[in-house]
Amino acid sequence: MSKIAVGIIGLGTVGTGVLKLLMDDPRLRVKWVAVREIKRPRDIDLSRTRVTDNPLDVVNDPEVEILIEVAGGVGPIFELMRTAIERGKHIVTANKELIAKHGAEIFQLAQRNNVTVLFEAAVGGGIPLISTLQRGLQANRISRVAGILNGTTNYILTAMEDRRIGFEEALAEAQRLGFAEANPRDDIEGFDVAYKTTILASLAFGRFVDVESVYRQGISDITDLDISIAKEFGYRIKMIGLAERRPEGLDVRAHPMLLPVHHLLASVEGANNAIFISGSAVGDVMLVGPGAGQMPTASAVVGDVINLASALHLPDFAPYFQPAIDCEHSRACPIEDSESAFYLRFEASDTPGVIGNLGRAFETHNVSLHSLLQRGVTRDGAATIVLLTHPTREAGFAGALREIESQPTTRRIGIALRVFRQPA
Amino acid sequence: MSKIAVGIIGLGTVGTGVLKLLMDDPRLRVKWVAVREIKRPRDIDLSRTRVTDNPLDVVNDPEVEILIEVAGGVGPIFELMRTAIERGKHIVTANKELIAKHGAEIFQLAQRNNVTVLFEAAVGGGIPLISTLQRGLQANRISRVAGILNGTTNYILTAMEDRRIGFEEALAEAQRLGFAEANPRDDIEGFDVAYKTTILASLAFGRFVDVESVYRQGISDITDLDISIAKEFGYRIKMIGLAERRPEGLDVRAHPMLLPVHHLLASVEGANNAIFISGSAVGDVMLVGPGAGQMPTASAVVGDVINLASALHLPDFAPYFQPAIDCEHSRACPIEDSESAFYLRFEASDTPGVIGNLGRAFETHNVSLHSLLQRGVTRDGAATIVLLTHPTREAGFAGALREIESQPTTRRIGIALRVFRQPA
Repeated sequence: MSKIAVGIIGLGTVGTGVLKLLMDDPRLRVKWVAVREIKRPRDIDLSRTRVTDNPLDVVNDPEVEILIEVAGGVGPIFELMRTAIERGKHIVTANKELIAKHGAEIFQLAQRNNVTVLFEAAVGGGIPLISTLQRGLQANRISRVAGILNGTTNYILTAMEDRRIGFEEALAEAQRLGFAEANPRDDIEGFDVAYKTTILASLAFGRFVDVESVYRQGISDITDLDISIAKEFGYRIKMIGLAERRPEGLDVRAHPMLLPVHHLLASVEGANNAIFISGSAVGDVMLVGPGAGQMPTASAVVGDVINLASALHLPDFAPYFQPAIDCEHSRACPIEDSESAFYLRFEASDTPGVIGNLGRAFETHNVSLHSLLQRGVTRDGAATIVLLTHPTREAGFAGALREIESQPTTRRIGIALRVFRQPA
Repeated sequence: MSKIAVGIIGLGTVGTGVLKLLMDDPRLRVKWVAVREIKRPRDIDLSRTRVTDNPLDVVNDPEVEILIEVAGGVGPIFELMRTAIERGKHIVTANKELIAKHGAEIFQLAQRNNVTVLFEAAVGGGIPLISTLQRGLQANRISRVAGILNGTTNYILTAMEDRRIGFEEALAEAQRLGFAEANPRDDIEGFDVAYKTTILASLAFGRFVDVESVYRQGISDITDLDISIAKEFGYRIKMIGLAERRPEGLDVRAHPMLLPVHHLLASVEGANNAIFISGSAVGDVMLVGPGAGQMPTASAVVGDVINLASALHLPDFAPYFQPAIDCEHSRACPIEDSESAFYLRFEASDTPGVIGNLGRAFETHNVSLHSLLQRGVTRDGAATIVLLTHPTREAGFAGALREIESQPTTRRIGIALRVFRQPA
């Protein structure tokens, strides 16, 4: 049997890992690699493959059957993927932003052209999440998927907790060790988790979710004080992607949460990722593993390529392989309609009336207090107040928060975080 | 499209769960259910299916395309499966004993008859282990699989630790709560884990392992003292199935082990199962979830059935689906050739010379001591001695143990347990 010709777009960290894994595969031949700079010296043998800086060379080669996209980004890459699909090429991609933003169009186009688009590496790095949702749990109606989907933020939060250091210090450390990028915005501000959660929600619930409708909050306002007080209350703070089926619709969001210390997700540390899946028949299943890194991500990409390659000879196999996702876009429920318990930290002047004001704001908006803690007084006469509420409508809490913010005794709102809710 | 006709052999706990999940599936029709006693009243509507007490009715019906075997046992069921495969039926089974003992023959027969045999439910209950090994981690060479594969023993060991109760009391409790069977031998003595580990090893390493060559030790000799001393040493005792690729061959075994408390597997509690997979590209991945129970097991069975049904129209799809396992049997390496650190508890008379005798036995057999603890003296003048060794050849430790046993100062060997080894 002749080898299946494959093209790789992008030869960064992941692309190099993919090439390493594919080089000696007896079933496949990497015919093309498209790079940005041809002349750059590289840590890998390129003598057996054609190298180009024009990705259209790869897309236009009729011999190439599988296109591996590990370049990242959306604008020009989206155009390139469209062309490749129209040319009948199967796609394997690690590009979460592309699938989260343009998944519906890409899937429709793939269907019309009878090709397959696989993207195991886009979520959870090396953890076989997508095969699990798509194959392993077929008999289940998935009610909820909750995950630690970003190694950078999990590394930072773990470091802050373990060594009682601040956010900036933990971020600098993560950057030094290669767990965070020089420009960490996508990770720190939750964009990365929002993309991944959007994809998980689409797979779990069978319809594409509009990524713009997904609520997002980053971790940069979390202090070591929040982490230690959360611990006193019996929680750990984790950056969570959550997708839940609710009577009102799909609840999809990406934000830090207080997780009960005994929850399985709470014990996932450092750069690991984890995903917690609740299914109608199976109950709760969790998968843990490396969420990023060269070889784990390459493992997921090449897994898709091998599965695809081993089925390519089957006639009409694409619809079997392609995840069944309705291409009509759904919007996630507005966050205002959801319900959570809240953690709040704010600074107030050390004067009488602070707690009374707080109580009135909560009463007006029907928010019920669970625990309250006042911490010392700073040199400038401010007291730090930390509290937990009972579960409450998001809109009610937001109203109370606005009122607290406007009270003369309030100096500054520090942070408001949601508490992970155990399903009823 | 007409519905695919399915037959179920066995309507116990799992079979009833399977029928519940399949009853309303638009793609499938449960045409037959074979039961042991037709007249027994059942908690499920059987009006839409034919019920027989002769399984050959199902196997001989040419309309049935998929046979679901949830009866258990090996003798007559093995014969029945052979007949079904020869009649061209695809098989979905939850029967770990059948696959562990006769997998090679069944797979060969399936290949000759161009049918598929799936068995996701045989290992790890509802956890999609097999799809992960077979699909998700395709790009990896698996070096080791280690798992908590038996909910009964994990429940008992967790209960002994949490509530400081003895083995018998914990077993009785597990039986009362339905986590252990009236005859618990298969679980307690490690047969169940040995079957499951054999299957995992076959999948992970691509060749069938002879179940008779798999070393097995049960948990009934473990006392609450062992659990609390292990904890002092920094370990938790777990029943582990281990399959590892070693230069000498395949190391496959099922026995309790001391796991470092910080290992991910150590935190898996109660009736949950977990599997820890080490792959060449991905690194370490862990899956956790319910390892038994009606609906989790049914979830795995029906997942296989749905995956199979959705591909049945593809011509020549069986070889793609069938896990690639070499049907030539391999034997696991003899346990004598392996290397472990050991935990040993024994009773000695409270006389001088005990520690000297111990030291001589270890020296003769080249075993090096790591920690030693002597606990009080009982009314009849016996002292309990507990120790940990450094990693040592199994044969050397066995020799030392025989020598210790024969020393006049030794009253009784309590238990010897292996310590989980982190791969180099």
